[in-house]
Amino acid sequence: MKQYLTNDPWCVVEDGFHREHNEVTESLMSLGNGRLGGRGNFEEKFTGKTLPGNYVAGVYYPDKTRVGWWKNGYPDYFAKVLNAANWIGIDVDIEYESLDLNTCEVSGFRRVLNMQEGYLERQFVATLKSGKQLKVSSKRFCSIVDDEAGAIRYSITPLNFDAKITITPYIDGAIRNKDANYDETFWDEVRKETAYGEAYIELRTRKTGFHVVTGMCVDVEQNGAKFDYQSQPIKYEKYVANRISLDCRQGQETVIYKYAVNLSSLNYDPDELIKEAHQYMQRITRKGFDKMLFEQQQAWADKWKMNDITIDGDIAAQQGIRFNIFQLNQTYTGEDERLNIGPKGFTGEKYGGSTYWDTEAYCLPFYLSTADQKVARNLLIYRYKQLEKAIENAQKLGFRAGAALYPMVTMNGEECHNEWEITFEEIHRNGAIAYAIYDYVRYTGDETYLVDYGLEVLVAISRFWSQRVNWSEAKQQYVMLGVTGPNEYENNVNNNWYTNYIAAWTLRYTMQAVDTVKRLNPEAYAELADRIHFREEKEIAKAKHIVENMHYPFDETRQVFLQQSDFLDKEIMPVSDIPKGQRPLNQNWSWDRILRSCFIKQADVLQGLYFFEDEFDTETLKRNFDFYEPMTVHESSLSPCVHSIQASKLGMKEKAYEMYLRTARLDLDDYNNDTEDGCHITSMAGTWLAVVKGFGGMRVANDQLQLAPYCPDGWTSFAFKIRFRGALLQVTTTQEQVTVENFSTSSTTIQVRGKAVTVAANSKQTVVVKKATA
Amino acid sequence: MKQYLTNDPWCVVEDGFHREHNEVTESLMSLGNGRLGGRGNFEEKFTGKTLPGNYVAGVYYPDKTRVGWWKNGYPDYFAKVLNAANWIGIDVDIEYESLDLNTCEVSGFRRVLNMQEGYLERQFVATLKSGKQLKVSSKRFCSIVDDEAGAIRYSITPLNFDAKITITPYIDGAIRNKDANYDETFWDEVRKETAYGEAYIELRTRKTGFHVVTGMCVDVEQNGAKFDYQSQPIKYEKYVANRISLDCRQGQETVIYKYAVNLSSLNYDPDELIKEAHQYMQRITRKGFDKMLFEQQQAWADKWKMNDITIDGDIAAQQGIRFNIFQLNQTYTGEDERLNIGPKGFTGEKYGGSTYWDTEAYCLPFYLSTADQKVARNLLIYRYKQLEKAIENAQKLGFRAGAALYPMVTMNGEECHNEWEITFEEIHRNGAIAYAIYDYVRYTGDETYLVDYGLEVLVAISRFWSQRVNWSEAKQQYVMLGVTGPNEYENNVNNNWYTNYIAAWTLRYTMQAVDTVKRLNPEAYAELADRIHFREEKEIAKAKHIVENMHYPFDETRQVFLQQSDFLDKEIMPVSDIPKGQRPLNQNWSWDRILRSCFIKQADVLQGLYFFEDEFDTETLKRNFDFYEPMTVHESSLSPCVHSIQASKLGMKEKAYEMYLRTARLDLDDYNNDTEDGCHITSMAGTWLAVVKGFGGMRVANDQLQLAPYCPDGWTSFAFKIRFRGALLQVTTTQEQVTVENFSTSSTTIQVRGKAVTVAANSKQTVVVKKATA
Repeated sequence: MKQYLTNDPWCVVEDGFHREHNEVTESLMSLGNGRLGGRGNFEEKFTGKTLPGNYVAGVYYPDKTRVGWWKNGYPDYFAKVLNAANWIGIDVDIEYESLDLNTCEVSGFRRVLNMQEGYLERQFVATLKSGKQLKVSSKRFCSIVDDEAGAIRYSITPLNFDAKITITPYIDGAIRNKDANYDETFWDEVRKETAYGEAYIELRTRKTGFHVVTGMCVDVEQNGAKFDYQSQPIKYEKYVANRISLDCRQGQETVIYKYAVNLSSLNYDPDELIKEAHQYMQRITRKGFDKMLFEQQQAWADKWKMNDITIDGDIAAQQGIRFNIFQLNQTYTGEDERLNIGPKGFTGEKYGGSTYWDTEAYCLPFYLSTADQKVARNLLIYRYKQLEKAIENAQKLGFRAGAALYPMVTMNGEECHNEWEITFEEIHRNGAIAYAIYDYVRYTGDETYLVDYGLEVLVAISRFWSQRVNWSEAKQQYVMLGVTGPNEYENNVNNNWYTNYIAAWTLRYTMQAVDTVKRLNPEAYAELADRIHFREEKEIAKAKHIVENMHYPFDETRQVFLQQSDFLDKEIMPVSDIPKGQRPLNQNWSWDRILRSCFIKQADVLQGLYFFEDEFDTETLKRNFDFYEPMTVHESSLSPCVHSIQASKLGMKEKAYEMYLRTARLDLDDYNNDTEDGCHITSMAGTWLAVVKGFGGMRVANDQLQLAPYCPDGWTSFAFKIRFRGALLQVTTTQEQVTVENFSTSSTTIQVRGKAVTVAANSKQTVVVKKATA
Repeated sequence: MKQYLTNDPWCVVEDGFHREHNEVTESLMSLGNGRLGGRGNFEEKFTGKTLPGNYVAGVYYPDKTRVGWWKNGYPDYFAKVLNAANWIGIDVDIEYESLDLNTCEVSGFRRVLNMQEGYLERQFVATLKSGKQLKVSSKRFCSIVDDEAGAIRYSITPLNFDAKITITPYIDGAIRNKDANYDETFWDEVRKETAYGEAYIELRTRKTGFHVVTGMCVDVEQNGAKFDYQSQPIKYEKYVANRISLDCRQGQETVIYKYAVNLSSLNYDPDELIKEAHQYMQRITRKGFDKMLFEQQQAWADKWKMNDITIDGDIAAQQGIRFNIFQLNQTYTGEDERLNIGPKGFTGEKYGGSTYWDTEAYCLPFYLSTADQKVARNLLIYRYKQLEKAIENAQKLGFRAGAALYPMVTMNGEECHNEWEITFEEIHRNGAIAYAIYDYVRYTGDETYLVDYGLEVLVAISRFWSQRVNWSEAKQQYVMLGVTGPNEYENNVNNNWYTNYIAAWTLRYTMQAVDTVKRLNPEAYAELADRIHFREEKEIAKAKHIVENMHYPFDETRQVFLQQSDFLDKEIMPVSDIPKGQRPLNQNWSWDRILRSCFIKQADVLQGLYFFEDEFDTETLKRNFDFYEPMTVHESSLSPCVHSIQASKLGMKEKAYEMYLRTARLDLDDYNNDTEDGCHITSMAGTWLAVVKGFGGMRVANDQLQLAPYCPDGWTSFAFKIRFRGALLQVTTTQEQVTVENFSTSSTTIQVRGKAVTVAANSKQTVVVKKATA
C-alpha cells in the first residue's frame, strides 16, 4: 500500500519526483486510445528505475512457452502483448551533458494525468552537474479522435545559461519485452527512412508477421514562432532520429512538437503502410498540436458525459472510481471487433493474451451500461469469430461433434495458457461466454443477436457441457469431474457447484434460445441447424436429461451449496484464524497447503448466486454469504466487487463498503504491491459494478431497468450515468433521496425499489425521500 | 519396439551397424562401475546420430528450474546429472581423411556388450572415400576394481595401404548437457597439463564447486611390441590431447592403450586432486591393460556368482534378466553411502536427480537379496543423512516440530521437482522410506538399525503424517486431502487409499519401533527422545487416534478398496475399451481427460496390497486385482512388475508372464521408444522382483525365508540366487521340481510352499517333485 500521490477528483497527481515508485507511477499514468498506448515514461533519457512500454492493440507475438513438464494438449505458445517501438523519446543534450532525471537535481517536479481531458503533463526544473538549470514541461496524449496518432509538446527553457542544446527526437524499435520467456527479440526491421524533421521505421513481428510503421514529425518553436531548424538524420539498427541543434538563450522557451503515427498491417495493406503513414502524418500535422488537443478534450468530455460517476464527500473514492472508468475507456473503445480487453491494457506487458473470462463476467456489463450498444455487441462478436478455434481447441482435448471450449487466455482464439489445472480444467469460462450472450440480450432486448450469432455459440458450448459431464452410477446423477472453479485455490475438484450450475444453465438457455430463433426467423434456424448438424431432438433430449439430473453438492445441515464435492472434509475456519503475517496466502503458503485449506481466493458459489440471482431467494444468498465470505481471502482482484454487490443486496452496508474499498483504489494505492507491472484493467470494471449494481442496485428484468440505491455512510451523495435502450439516465443518491434524471428525448419508466417510476424526457424525478435503510 | 539386436544369453550384440538406432545402442551398451560410467559411444569421431555421455557419480549441477507459473514452495533448482569430460575419445586421421563411421563405408561391424566380463568391444572394417581400408577393433571397460579408472584398447590395421596415421587421444571437457534448461555450460576449467603421452584437465562445476580431474595416459604397440612414439601436446579451452603420428604398414596392427582416471573432490582434497590423479594413473598403468581386464573379469564373475538368474528354454528372457541385473550392478555398488540409484544410472542424463522413491520401493529388495547387507544399509543411511533436509523441506511447506517430508527427487536431500501435484502432493514417497526400514529389518533381522538410525527417521515421518491428516467433521474420521498417489494419472485427490494406508501403517510401525528400541537400548532411546523432543505419550496417543480413526474409501458393493474418494463417480471401463491408436494415453489424450478417466498409470491400491500383503487375505487381493488390473495402462515402467508378482500370487500364470514380459526387455526392445535417452535403471529391479518374488514366491516372514516357486509355461527351468542372513542359496525351478542349493557353510531352514525344508551346508535338496500348479 502506497500513498505518495495527491488526491484529486479529476487527476492523478505526483507532486515531487518519487524516484523509488517511478514504475508504479508510470503504470498509473499510462495513456491509451483503444488502438495504441503506453506507460507514463519520460520523453527524455532516464537511467533510473523505469519500465519502458509502448503497445499496439492486436499486435502480438507467440512466445515459445516455458513449462516444467509438458502435458499433452498444451499450446505451443503464450501470446505476448508486444512492447513496440518507442515513439515518445526525445533526448536532450546541453553541450556535454545529457538531461537525465536520475543524475541531475530535480525540483518543482509535477506529473499529472488529466483524466478529464485525456493527457499527461509534466514539469520540472533540472539542475545539471555543471550547475546549468533548465525548466522543462511536457504534455502528451494518444488521440482518441485520430486513434493511430499521438502528440507531444516538449518545452525547454534555460534558466541560467545560454547554450547550444541538442534535441534528438527518435523512434526506437530495438525493444525487448521484459517478460520474454527466452530473452528473444520479437521484432525485425523491414525498412526505415528519414527526411527533414521526419523519420519512419517499419518493423515486422517475428512468426506472426505483423507490420507496424511508426513515424514522427518534429516542429520547433522559439520565441513563440515556428523555427526553421536544421536537422541531422540518424539511423541505427531499428532506430531513426533527427538531431537538432538549437541556440537557446537564458529565459527563452524552445518548444518541440513531436507528432507520431503508428499504423499496423491489421488495418492496412503492408505494402501501403509507409505511404499511409505519410498521409496520416500530413493530416495530423496540418491540424497541429493545439487542435488535436482541443479535439481530444472534447472527445473525452463526450465520454464523461455518458459514464461519469461522481461521489461527493470522499475525494479518494471519487478519484478511484474515475481512474477506473478512465482506464477502461482508454483500453477498449469497441470500435474494432478484433480487439479485446487485455488484463493490463496499455499499462504493462505482463500476463499477455488479450482476452480472459474477465471480459464477459466483469467488463461486458460496464460497456453495456456506459457505451453504445455496438461496443458490447463487438465484444460478443469477437468470441463468435473465434468459435471455430474454440471447436478446434475442444477437439484437441477429445471432444467431438462441434463442441467448443473457449480458451482461458487468448489473442486470436487459440489457447495460450499452460497450466493443466487452468487450461484444461477452468472450464467455467465457457459458461461465462454463454452468460454474456444472455446478459446482452437481457440488457438490450436485441434478440436478433441470437439469430445472427448467439445461438451458434450457445449450441457449441452446450455440446461441450453435454460431453463434459458423465453419468455417475454411484450417484445416479450427472457429475463433472476434474475441474477448477473460479476459486483457483482449489484445483481438479469434482462437481464444483458453480461450474455444474452454469453448465446446466447454459443447456437451459440454449433450449430457450432455440425457441426464440425458431420464432423470430425459422429460415435462419433451419439454415443454422443444417450447417452445424444440430440434431435438435436428440441433443435437446440429452440436454434435458442432464438439466434434470445434474448433481449439485449441498450441505443439508447448513443448507448451503457446497463449493465442490467433499468440501466439508476440510477443516472449516475463518480467515481471521490465519496467523498474522501469513497473508497473502499465495506468498506465504505452499500451493498444497492453500489447496487443502478451506480458504477461498475469490467468489465461487457467490459468483453463481450473483449471475443467477433470479433463481435463488435472499435467504439462500444470506446463508451462503455467511458461510463463504468469512473463508474468502480475496487474493484475486475480481473477488471483492462481487462480495460488495452481494453485501449491498443483503443490506450489509459496512461489508459492502469494506469490499468496495478493496477494489476502488487497488492500483492507485498499489494495494497488492504489483502495480509497477501495470494496472489491473479488467478488475476495474468490478469497481464500477460495485457502485452501480451494488450501491445503485441496478438490474434489468422484464425489459425494465430496476434500481435500489443507497448511499454509503461516509458519502454525501453519489451519482452514476447509465444508458438503457436508447435512454441516458443519471441516478443521484444522497442519504435522503434518489433522483433520476432522464437526458433523452422520450420518457422512460423504471423500477426504483420495486416501484414503477416514469421520468419524462429531459427531466428528473426525485423518487425516494426518506433515508435509505436497505 | 525394436528388434535389431541379436539375442545372446550373456551379451548385447549389434551385428552390422544400425546407424538409425545408434543412440538406443549407446544407451544399452553403457558401462559403469558405480563411481563413473558412460554411454556406449564410439572412441573415434562420429558425426552421425549420437548422444555423447560420460558421468561421475555424486557430481551434479543445480540447473535453474523452468516452470510456467511459479508456486510458492517450489525449489529453485533441478539437480542435473552432469555430462562430464569425455575420456574415451581417440581421433584417427589417415593422411587427409578422418575416420568417421558416418562418412565412410562400414563392413563387418559388430558391437558387443559383454555382461559376463564387464566390457564393451567393437570391430569393423572402414573403407574411406579414398578407397583406403582399415580394420579397427576396440575394447573398453570401467574398472570395478579400480573404480576411478577406465581403459581402452584400440587397434588399427591398414588393409590395403601404407600411410602415416595420426592418432589423437584426448580429454574433452567442453561438454554441455543436452537437457540443460537454459543451454548453459555447467563446467569451468581450473587447470590442465600435458606431458609425454599424458594429459590432465581439472574442471569445476559452476555453483556446486565440485572439482573433477580427468586424466589419460597413452601407450602404443606396434608389431606386438611397445613403441616409443613421439607426441605433440594440444591444449584448447577445456581440452587436452596428444597428437601421435605413426607410420603404419599394410597388414600391421597398431594398438593404442588409453588409460583414464577420473577423480573428484567428493573423495579427495581439491588441492591434491592432480597429484592423486598422477598417482592413480601410475598405479593402473603399472598394472597394464591386460591385468586390469583380467581383474575386471574376475570381479564380475564374483558378482554373477552371487546374483545370476538363469532361464532355460528362452534365450530372450535369459538375456533380458541378465541385462537388468548387469545394469543395476553397474549403477550402484553400495560402496558409498552418499550415492544412490539415478533413474538413468550412467546411461543418460534425462530427468536428473539421483534418488526417487523407486530406490526404496523397488531397488532395495534387489540389493537386500543379491549383495552384502551393507549395500542395502547404505541406501537407508543415505536417507538418514538427509533427514535434516527433509525436516527443512516439510517446514517450507508449513509443517512443524520435526516433521519430515523427503523430496520427490533429490541429489543431496533438497527437493528438485517442480510440479505442485507431485512435489507437494505425491507424499506417499515418505511412507516408502519408512517401509524400506521395515523391509530391511525384516530381511536382515538387524534391529540395531532401528536404534542407530531407523527410529529417528520413523518418528520424523510419523510426525509428518500426524500433521498432514485432518479431522473431518463430516466423516468423523481422519482424512488426507489433496494428494497424488502412486497412480500419477490422478492428481490432488482426497483419501488416496494407498497413501492413507501407508500413513497409518507408518504410525503403527513407529510405535512398534519405539518399543523395540526401548527394549534393545533404553539409554539410546532416552538420548534420542531428548534430542528430537519426542513427547512419547502425547505423540503416541495422537498416532493411535489416527490409526484407529483413519478413513479408507471402500466400495461395499464390490468389496474393494477405492483408490480415492469418489472414484466410483467415474465412468468405469476396461482398458480394452480404449479406441485403437489412442495409447499410450499420455501421448494421445489431454491431461484432464486422463485425470477424469478411470485409467490407472501404475499399481496403486495393488501397490499397497503388495507392500502390506500380510494384512489382507488372498480373496481381498483377488477382488481388487480383478477390479483394478483391467483399468491399468501400465504407462509407468514400475507398474507391470507389481502386477506380475500379484498375478503369480493369485495363480494367474498367463497374466503374470504377460506382465513380466513388459518389464524384462523394456530397454532391449525399446518398448516405449525412449531408450535413446538412457535405460530405465530403477525399474530393472522390478524385473528381478517379478522373477524372485513373483515366479519364485520369495518372501521373508518370522525370520525365515519362504518360497513358492513355479516355472512359467514357456521355460524349461529357471534358477535364481539369493543371500539371506549369511547364507547363499540357489533356487532352481523346473516344470516338475524345485531344488534349493545351499552354498554356505552351515545348514539353513526355509519354507517351501508352506513346508519347512532344511538344506545342509554345501548341499542341495529337491523339495517339490510334482508339477507346480500354483
